[in-house]
Amino acid sequence: MKKVNKILEIIKVLNQTIGALHFHNKSNVYLHEPDIRKEDWKFVKECLSRNFVSSVGNYVTEFEDMLKKFTKAKYVIATVNGTSAIHLALVVMGANENDEVILPSLNFVAAANAVRYCNAIPHFVEVEEETLGIDPVKLEEYLKKIVIKKNNISFNKYTKKRIRFMMPLHMFGHPAKILELKKIAKNYNLKIIEDAAESLGSTYKNKHLGTFGDIGVLSFNGNKIITTGGGGALLTNSLKIAKKLKYLSTTAKKPHRWKYEYSDIGYNYRMPGINASLGCAQMKRIKSYVNIKRKLFKKYKDGFKNIKDITMFQEPKYAKSNYWLQTIILDNKISHLKEKILEKANNMGFSMRPIWKPLHKLEKFKLCPKMEMKTTENLEKRILNLPSSVYLLKNIKNYAK
Amino acid sequence: MKKVNKILEIIKVLNQTIGALHFHNKSNVYLHEPDIRKEDWKFVKECLSRNFVSSVGNYVTEFEDMLKKFTKAKYVIATVNGTSAIHLALVVMGANENDEVILPSLNFVAAANAVRYCNAIPHFVEVEEETLGIDPVKLEEYLKKIVIKKNNISFNKYTKKRIRFMMPLHMFGHPAKILELKKIAKNYNLKIIEDAAESLGSTYKNKHLGTFGDIGVLSFNGNKIITTGGGGALLTNSLKIAKKLKYLSTTAKKPHRWKYEYSDIGYNYRMPGINASLGCAQMKRIKSYVNIKRKLFKKYKDGFKNIKDITMFQEPKYAKSNYWLQTIILDNKISHLKEKILEKANNMGFSMRPIWKPLHKLEKFKLCPKMEMKTTENLEKRILNLPSSVYLLKNIKNYAK
Repeated sequence: MKKVNKILEIIKVLNQTIGALHFHNKSNVYLHEPDIRKEDWKFVKECLSRNFVSSVGNYVTEFEDMLKKFTKAKYVIATVNGTSAIHLALVVMGANENDEVILPSLNFVAAANAVRYCNAIPHFVEVEEETLGIDPVKLEEYLKKIVIKKNNISFNKYTKKRIRFMMPLHMFGHPAKILELKKIAKNYNLKIIEDAAESLGSTYKNKHLGTFGDIGVLSFNGNKIITTGGGGALLTNSLKIAKKLKYLSTTAKKPHRWKYEYSDIGYNYRMPGINASLGCAQMKRIKSYVNIKRKLFKKYKDGFKNIKDITMFQEPKYAKSNYWLQTIILDNKISHLKEKILEKANNMGFSMRPIWKPLHKLEKFKLCPKMEMKTTENLEKRILNLPSSVYLLKNIKNYAK
Repeated sequence: MKKVNKILEIIKVLNQTIGALHFHNKSNVYLHEPDIRKEDWKFVKECLSRNFVSSVGNYVTEFEDMLKKFTKAKYVIATVNGTSAIHLALVVMGANENDEVILPSLNFVAAANAVRYCNAIPHFVEVEEETLGIDPVKLEEYLKKIVIKKNNISFNKYTKKRIRFMMPLHMFGHPAKILELKKIAKNYNLKIIEDAAESLGSTYKNKHLGTFGDIGVLSFNGNKIITTGGGGALLTNSLKIAKKLKYLSTTAKKPHRWKYEYSDIGYNYRMPGINASLGCAQMKRIKSYVNIKRKLFKKYKDGFKNIKDITMFQEPKYAKSNYWLQTIILDNKISHLKEKILEKANNMGFSMRPIWKPLHKLEKFKLCPKMEMKTTENLEKRILNLPSSVYLLKNIKNYAK
């Protein structure tokens, strides 16, 4: 009886918070839908009418410039998607079969897949409940135990492989403790590829996520805060890295009016113009999107404040989250209700979802090195995402300001 | 003096054939421009207005269905580009560091790059002047000399690697001798990945290119006969292969309403909806495009018929080419004029281009196994492509029929 009540309480909050705003129009409220408006059409239409759909034309550069201005990264390279961006970052940093890449196990599978594309080894580490990002304290303790340094290179003393990279994730747009992680990376001489795929609009101590690492990665998949259909971007402040990223994101053709000569292995990962034109249109609203999502967070928080055993995940004081996906964390004592909640909510038309299965538990990554995963495995049972689309607040005052 | 005359003769033909059709509007006539029309905008607009820009919605399936119907391939999987399609084909066929892949050296660099993504070894072979594709006679002689078979697997007796794949290219849309090549592949137990990236609309004995191999590959880059901005497709008649291609073209998530579980390493290579919507629009005109290009060929042929030492490349009787890129072949005695011709034509605003540098001559592939390259190296000096855009014949009667 108590169990049923808890589930109904959650549905009630969803209904009160976002139900009225959509159910007169549709039967399902999805987790995160793109927000495409008539003013976006103009950009795409102009792109088509100028024949700039592919690699010719200025939309890709314009989109990159908008991202530069917004994130304050010195260099931005747009790619076909976030996965290709992570892959290219690893390629340019020279990741190979001798390397292990430190990354959280509570993660989207594409991050570890990209490590495998380079034949490098994912090395899974633990997250903390406070940020849902890598736990810097536990990581440092762990590295102290397993790392042996030779000529300032960190080796895993058990696998004998080099540990050369750290790939922290900012979960659902919420900033991880990136400065603490950066300090550890420096101590162990690790290059940072900062996975900010979900974090356009999020900052840590007023600095945009993705600009702390050697390379940062963004995604503009259909479910992200802005979309290009499919797309991603690489951020860096190093001209040398930027040049290499850009060169390898094409077919690595040497510049000439008609000659075809190629040096390195290129990846053909450049974003096409048609996708970039949509990105330019969407970027015009990124600030208002962040505002809307932060308001949606407050509404949800208000709704859940009297529901026992459930906490809305909230940004720490020193950081500003884009609240890409709204998140609740169940208390341990009701975590057994997770599947029931998901079933009821989805049946009622509210697309809630659990967090991903931790990657160290997937068959294909089972043999990869990892640290103890207490918090990760505990959080797996307790994290749920709520419908988070921008349109849910379309009727709220001050929208698009 | 004679040299100057030859170059001027070529420019005169270009001017007479296509000059009048465009120079009142623009100062440059590019090699191959997209042809995007007002009716294309309707498709893209509807895609935008329905929020189907990414993986949600039916545009990708619709585009695949149109390709199925047109090529008569049983299964089609749309990807982010042609390079990703070749890569995925090799992954699904299990190519790895123990394998050599037979492919022509006269080739676009992406084909050999994709082989390297899998850590497999490109093994370069010779082409013939008649088709610009792999020379089946020379290939068979060569394989006889270098292959040793064990348990029906072909091994390169010099490198000790397996030879498991053949990746024939249909150059500029012109059909290679695919049936002869298929016979050789069968004898040596090679899987065929058929590179039809440039060949949408081309047939060999009335069967569409890309449907002869185990897997075929198409490209819809901005310079191709139809474009999706950036895009590619995989063709196959095997349900088993099709399922695997489709699964790995995503993130390889097991189907469930809310659970996130992943089996294999997925590649996130699916074409986004916005690109597919443009593809649907373009596919409506594929037949007329092929007609236009065949007419453009006739016009060029007519123009060049009295120019000594220059031959318009022409399809063999048993095949029908889409004439994607119009091609002239210089006689040996004037091949020394190639650079001068390119310079003059490009300076005059006609984007002519030479064929690619053969891949075996690139630094990065220098150590790869290869056969004697007499014809390849000779053709490198003699092949030139002419401006081939559809719009060049826009004013010709019967256009778009």
